[in-house]
Amino acid sequence: MTRLSKYIHQDEAGLWLTEHEKDHMRISYKLKSVLYEHQSPFQHILVVDSHDFGKMLVLDGAVQTTTLDGFIYNEMIAHVPLTLHPHPEKVLIIGGGDCGVAREACKYAKLKEIVQVEIDEHVVRTCKQHLPEIAGREDDPRVQYVYADGVEYVKNAENEFDVIIIDSSDPVGPAVQLFEIDFYRNVKKALKPDGLMVCQSQSPIFHRDIMSQTYGNIRSLFPHVHMYTAVVPTYPGGLWSYTLGSNRPLPDLAAVTFDKPAQYVSTEIVRSCFGLPGFVRDSLKKAEEAAIK
Amino acid sequence: MTRLSKYIHQDEAGLWLTEHEKDHMRISYKLKSVLYEHQSPFQHILVVDSHDFGKMLVLDGAVQTTTLDGFIYNEMIAHVPLTLHPHPEKVLIIGGGDCGVAREACKYAKLKEIVQVEIDEHVVRTCKQHLPEIAGREDDPRVQYVYADGVEYVKNAENEFDVIIIDSSDPVGPAVQLFEIDFYRNVKKALKPDGLMVCQSQSPIFHRDIMSQTYGNIRSLFPHVHMYTAVVPTYPGGLWSYTLGSNRPLPDLAAVTFDKPAQYVSTEIVRSCFGLPGFVRDSLKKAEEAAIK
Repeated sequence: MTRLSKYIHQDEAGLWLTEHEKDHMRISYKLKSVLYEHQSPFQHILVVDSHDFGKMLVLDGAVQTTTLDGFIYNEMIAHVPLTLHPHPEKVLIIGGGDCGVAREACKYAKLKEIVQVEIDEHVVRTCKQHLPEIAGREDDPRVQYVYADGVEYVKNAENEFDVIIIDSSDPVGPAVQLFEIDFYRNVKKALKPDGLMVCQSQSPIFHRDIMSQTYGNIRSLFPHVHMYTAVVPTYPGGLWSYTLGSNRPLPDLAAVTFDKPAQYVSTEIVRSCFGLPGFVRDSLKKAEEAAIK
Repeated sequence: MTRLSKYIHQDEAGLWLTEHEKDHMRISYKLKSVLYEHQSPFQHILVVDSHDFGKMLVLDGAVQTTTLDGFIYNEMIAHVPLTLHPHPEKVLIIGGGDCGVAREACKYAKLKEIVQVEIDEHVVRTCKQHLPEIAGREDDPRVQYVYADGVEYVKNAENEFDVIIIDSSDPVGPAVQLFEIDFYRNVKKALKPDGLMVCQSQSPIFHRDIMSQTYGNIRSLFPHVHMYTAVVPTYPGGLWSYTLGSNRPLPDLAAVTFDKPAQYVSTEIVRSCFGLPGFVRDSLKKAEEAAIK
């Protein structure tokens, strides 16, 4: 790697990746090295090795996942729905280019098919090669890779999946449609009658509008909607929200147990992750009132 | 304010505060203005107004609290112990210079005395004047301000307090002793027999050693020790831990309710905040085994 990316600069203290998280904030990570750089038809892909967060996947200059904490996000978006659905057999993952969600799903022996629909094949190949700590080192024959637009994919699916996991990037550029109600309507259609869906719904602190809008959209389609949170240190604000929509009521959380090998998710996390801060509950109440009008 | 602090620089995009959080990470916040700057006998005190986090208190270049998210830390360190103690009347706050913890404690009508022991009077006066959003705008006659070293203060207290809240800064410089077992031994002595204490025990992600050591120290002194977490966006890693030590078992969490006005803490947060990620529970198990040997 000789050419330095436009997202990287060198000064007297070393090599730095600077993320312009928001208009008024810059976060710089000191790097050991740049491992891979490529401009795909969809986005700029960068893999770096940092001092504090280990290896990082960076898309269009924004850190997506790291080997230090990527497991938190991936475990939470995969295990909560897969633990709460009583008998999942067929799962659809939309997005999930780092392959970490598919890897977590493979821990369920009862799953028969895991379909991952990611628009950018280059991201999947990059993570398989340069981030095996996240993507996994082995290929599970139950995982089917589809390189297509998830929005189009769910238009053509009906009554097919037990669980749908929407692991999107931020709602800018191609991911915008993954936050719109037409998309969720098709997700509901693609689910079996007792199915459930989950999506990442951004930061309750910095993206409260998107979080509330997502919750409201899903609430207007599903009778049972629940938000849960986790902490993802490399995402702005740290606190991250997930919204789960289900056609059936969830099981009693106090009786749920979790028995897969994992670093973050545990039985006590599955039982407690739906406990929301007061200001988040207030935002959801307003979104709920608007959704059921 | 004409002179710029050594922690602040100006470039073509504006005025920035840059925090060197860790050796390999820099976070820059764009500022609207510098409100106050002073070198006290103990530390460099700075109050700035930022675009994304509102007003910030910065001590020796490290962001301590902000008007965007300071309520999370202060509510969690105050309300969890004050809700779980059955009949608190006299509370000791060690540190807590931003006065936010004392302000939360004042919401309990049953409290008769709130003693706050902060080493740096300048911090208290600065926050009262420049950060009333955190420190509060009114003086409650139950709050007694003592400007002294908390380590020395607890040496001379015995069987006096129902709840002791240790709101320390990071364990560097003068705060190092607030993380040592001799200090916690004196805290226990200063508590009534049915009293309980809580301290902030740093980040489970970036300070796992300090977190485990703190838990182990408190576990070796108190029969009942519990860790809980919250998300504090402006602290490194976002996830923050608190350790609670008690002479008596805690009440049944499923029966606890919280009824004070608050933004983050709610009944569901008090009930769920003790649910720990797997990797945190693993660290505590090791610390516990070492403590009870």
